[in-house]
Amino acid sequence: MTAKASTWILSAQCESQLGSVDVVTRFLKERRCYITEISSFDDPRAGRFFIRAAFTADDTATFDQAEFETAFSERAAPFAMTFELTPADKRVKTLIMVSKADHCLNDLLYRHRTGQLPLDIKGIVSNHRDLEPLAQWHGLPYYHFPVTPDTKRAQEARIRALIDEVDAELVVLARYMQVLSPELCHRLSGRAINIHHSLLPGFRGAKPYHQAYEKGVKLVGATAHYINDDLDEGPIIAQGVDAVDHAHYPEDLVVKGRDVECLTLARAIGYHIERRVFLHAGRTVILKH
Amino acid sequence: MTAKASTWILSAQCESQLGSVDVVTRFLKERRCYITEISSFDDPRAGRFFIRAAFTADDTATFDQAEFETAFSERAAPFAMTFELTPADKRVKTLIMVSKADHCLNDLLYRHRTGQLPLDIKGIVSNHRDLEPLAQWHGLPYYHFPVTPDTKRAQEARIRALIDEVDAELVVLARYMQVLSPELCHRLSGRAINIHHSLLPGFRGAKPYHQAYEKGVKLVGATAHYINDDLDEGPIIAQGVDAVDHAHYPEDLVVKGRDVECLTLARAIGYHIERRVFLHAGRTVILKH
Amino acid sequence: MTAKASTWILSAQCESQLGSVDVVTRFLKERRCYITEISSFDDPRAGRFFIRAAFTADDTATFDQAEFETAFSERAAPFAMTFELTPADKRVKTLIMVSKADHCLNDLLYRHRTGQLPLDIKGIVSNHRDLEPLAQWHGLPYYHFPVTPDTKRAQEARIRALIDEVDAELVVLARYMQVLSPELCHRLSGRAINIHHSLLPGFRGAKPYHQAYEKGVKLVGATAHYINDDLDEGPIIAQGVDAVDHAHYPEDLVVKGRDVECLTLARAIGYHIERRVFLHAGRTVILKH
Amino acid sequence: MTAKASTWILSAQCESQLGSVDVVTRFLKERRCYITEISSFDDPRAGRFFIRAAFTADDTATFDQAEFETAFSERAAPFAMTFELTPADKRVKTLIMVSKADHCLNDLLYRHRTGQLPLDIKGIVSNHRDLEPLAQWHGLPYYHFPVTPDTKRAQEARIRALIDEVDAELVVLARYMQVLSPELCHRLSGRAINIHHSLLPGFRGAKPYHQAYEKGVKLVGATAHYINDDLDEGPIIAQGVDAVDHAHYPEDLVVKGRDVECLTLARAIGYHIERRVFLHAGRTVILKH
Repeated sequence: MTAKASTWILSAQCESQLGSVDVVTRFLKERRCYITEISSFDDPRAGRFFIRAAFTADDTATFDQAEFETAFSERAAPFAMTFELTPADKRVKTLIMVSKADHCLNDLLYRHRTGQLPLDIKGIVSNHRDLEPLAQWHGLPYYHFPVTPDTKRAQEARIRALIDEVDAELVVLARYMQVLSPELCHRLSGRAINIHHSLLPGFRGAKPYHQAYEKGVKLVGATAHYINDDLDEGPIIAQGVDAVDHAHYPEDLVVKGRDVECLTLARAIGYHIERRVFLHAGRTVILKH
Repeated sequence: MTAKASTWILSAQCESQLGSVDVVTRFLKERRCYITEISSFDDPRAGRFFIRAAFTADDTATFDQAEFETAFSERAAPFAMTFELTPADKRVKTLIMVSKADHCLNDLLYRHRTGQLPLDIKGIVSNHRDLEPLAQWHGLPYYHFPVTPDTKRAQEARIRALIDEVDAELVVLARYMQVLSPELCHRLSGRAINIHHSLLPGFRGAKPYHQAYEKGVKLVGATAHYINDDLDEGPIIAQGVDAVDHAHYPEDLVVKGRDVECLTLARAIGYHIERRVFLHAGRTVILKH
Repeated sequence: MTAKASTWILSAQCESQLGSVDVVTRFLKERRCYITEISSFDDPRAGRFFIRAAFTADDTATFDQAEFETAFSERAAPFAMTFELTPADKRVKTLIMVSKADHCLNDLLYRHRTGQLPLDIKGIVSNHRDLEPLAQWHGLPYYHFPVTPDTKRAQEARIRALIDEVDAELVVLARYMQVLSPELCHRLSGRAINIHHSLLPGFRGAKPYHQAYEKGVKLVGATAHYINDDLDEGPIIAQGVDAVDHAHYPEDLVVKGRDVECLTLARAIGYHIERRVFLHAGRTVILKH
Repeated sequence: MTAKASTWILSAQCESQLGSVDVVTRFLKERRCYITEISSFDDPRAGRFFIRAAFTADDTATFDQAEFETAFSERAAPFAMTFELTPADKRVKTLIMVSKADHCLNDLLYRHRTGQLPLDIKGIVSNHRDLEPLAQWHGLPYYHFPVTPDTKRAQEARIRALIDEVDAELVVLARYMQVLSPELCHRLSGRAINIHHSLLPGFRGAKPYHQAYEKGVKLVGATAHYINDDLDEGPIIAQGVDAVDHAHYPEDLVVKGRDVECLTLARAIGYHIERRVFLHAGRTVILKH
């Protein structure tokens, strides 16, 4: 497929080796691509190199994405460099999964509507009907997939089918309170972002805010992370905190935690869609300006 | 003992019951004590009431602490109210315990010297000689109590004897890397503050910063808490965080954690010496203005 | 009027003088009112005393608000103490004024709908139609009062009439971009909260974010304050900041400023409706737990 | 001069133009320099390009700084690119100027001593003797240059002479309360960092904390900036804030402001010595990882 676009993002990683920056920058120069922002990180512990370049294609030329990718593949091959080329204005096809809590969804849809999070939201999936009016008001499809212990597998099959059908590139678990199967988690590895109501790996298990209350914590936090085989673990993308005190009962901690959950999830999604997040060995590298 | 002082702090707690504020405020009114700041908290879950009043004694009278305490004891008895009366300008007799890391000690001594933390520092105790020059420059006694696996009990006995000798009311574990025995922890319960290099109960055990690095955390934190039977647990007094990223290796996390450790420990000590911290059922209530 | 209610808030202020706490606490004790939270502040510079007590009325009695107020007036008179008695669950009658920017409105209506900000929103007033759908979705009346330079006085008269008609106790200027007349500002003194897109009195005048950009600021802030004769000044209730960098152009600063504006405005309104804010001599005293 | 060093930093800027990244990266590749971190920023408003590359020289070669600079100059010339090449472990020759307040000096010397701020401190200059013991304890020369209204010019001449004598590359105004002449400010442009006790351009003029108190601010801040012709203005490098409340009198704001001043100044110096700060058109670009 050939696409015309003014600004692109090239993100790549490979083993640490001489010339790993040059192979990217020289190629861009030869094609008269103007780099507006470049950043790299070399992790000497992991022996791994990460690079992200945003560039504008020369407007005297017709930019051919497929041809660019083919040509760069040849250059990158000796480095065993994997890469992705993405139009900067690309809207990532996204499914948002929710249960009953609406704070993250409300926040995401607001940012989506106002252009702060330029996603292509293909739908909202939920095991409850509660948030359907909110989705409708934003003119977004709402998929109600109820679940019982008996229908768990069947319901997940529906989710999986929907992901395929809408060709979702990103799944956001915006307080979806159901456990996904290890298979689905694994399949969504690196393209599903979860928001966890705590600073991982702090208070695990049931009722984290009750545990936090019992400990008398003075901060509540939130962690946005990619899911991996374990839903509540996985590479951390963003974390946030807010101050609390002894007068915050567990139910107050829940409320207090909402703001920081919203902000942390939105920040993580922003990094993801700007192609700033690199995954390697269970950790993220986030190349910010 | 009789003391003259302009400003006092009365802190008290009892079971939740009608009149628990009035018993304090009426008594102060009768004695012409002017309340400059009062705050109370009633915990309905625990059925517990906490109150702190700062007041100035009428300057036409001679304030007699012992007589005040005796008289108030009678009033407080029907409420089974425990209380403490402290001169606002009291300098708490304090022992600081350190090993080799000097950031918290340097920060505390600076705040002590400049009057920000009005402590009566009776000495610095350490199992190493490294920080002796720092103590000397500040004109403070330094007790070098070396320790080996074989001398552990004897060394702790020296610490205990020193605590008694200087009549320490507060022990600050400012990065003292030795484990104290449960007996000593228990004995210091409520009057020993530790700074933990993490957000409890996050990364426990050895090499917390390595664990945090492996997880790819985006925040490092610190927790200041009273010690109880377990050195690294106990009621939380203050917590702080600072942002980190993928480029922070475990050794950088350690460095980055220093600033937040200093600030968090100093804040906790401040609350303690201003008599703002109340302990009940393993949690703290902190009555701030 | 007689009201039954379990929890009440008594807030009062007077000149600093002996017995100012006792006059409140003794009265509450006599009436078998149980104080769940009390805090006072005495400002020696201003010679002013502020107190806030939350209490539950004895459930064996019928609490009569008018009778309480009359009786307490007599007690308070010798202290020249002004006070307010408010049911803790009171929903303050509120008008929200907006122009076209919807971030603060979206945030407030979300918190209102979820019970985080228990207001009795009587309507949304705007000089534009843009935010009408948002108000409608929340089932709230929308008053479109367009304005031109020629109709400025007439439009303000409509606002004033509406304030009277709905008996608004609180007016929230949630990014209302019109200047109010000094008369209206004055009339709303202490009961109208504005959110200012900067840290007052930083970048004044036109295009504050452009000024901030030119200076290369590393933080953007927001200030929530009561309006006084000058719309953009007035006693500060809450302030917040967020980090920015050189890559944030003025338009990015605007976007970045939105989150902190929302959070800061919501916090200020929360303090106000919980009767935690006291006004004296152009400054606020905020009695938090 | 020829120097051997493993890691170097190349920082450069020029007008925005095609190939500005490639001219750097290709040159480094040809010389077998391994880039460990690269970042660039292109400011389309200013039409200006900034780049910073950290690299290690091939250890089979002898790295010749002068030869590198000469060779790169030729490459950079067509781009009108200005650049600096600095050993990563270079210790910048620094003079610290203070008056009586010691919090920033204490903090800087602590970070210096522990290697957090690897400066080559050539001396402490002060118009008072107060901080001499602190300098002495750290084994650093202390220059006492007293000043009166009459000796202002002469005293500044001594400062200027000292700057020349020790060949100071960086001057840190760590709460030096004297005004420098426009000539000296100008001469130190881009290599003198001041810490301002407020968020510029907030409360200017005398007694900023009193002004802040009168306004009832809820945040105190600090701004670290390069000085330019006006001592209290100049391109901002870092800013920080801390929360305050009504109980903080001007003198408390001063104390509260100290922590944030220390942290903000240390952060700014860190960016400077890591060659992360670029100056253009009165603003800074800070290339962080």
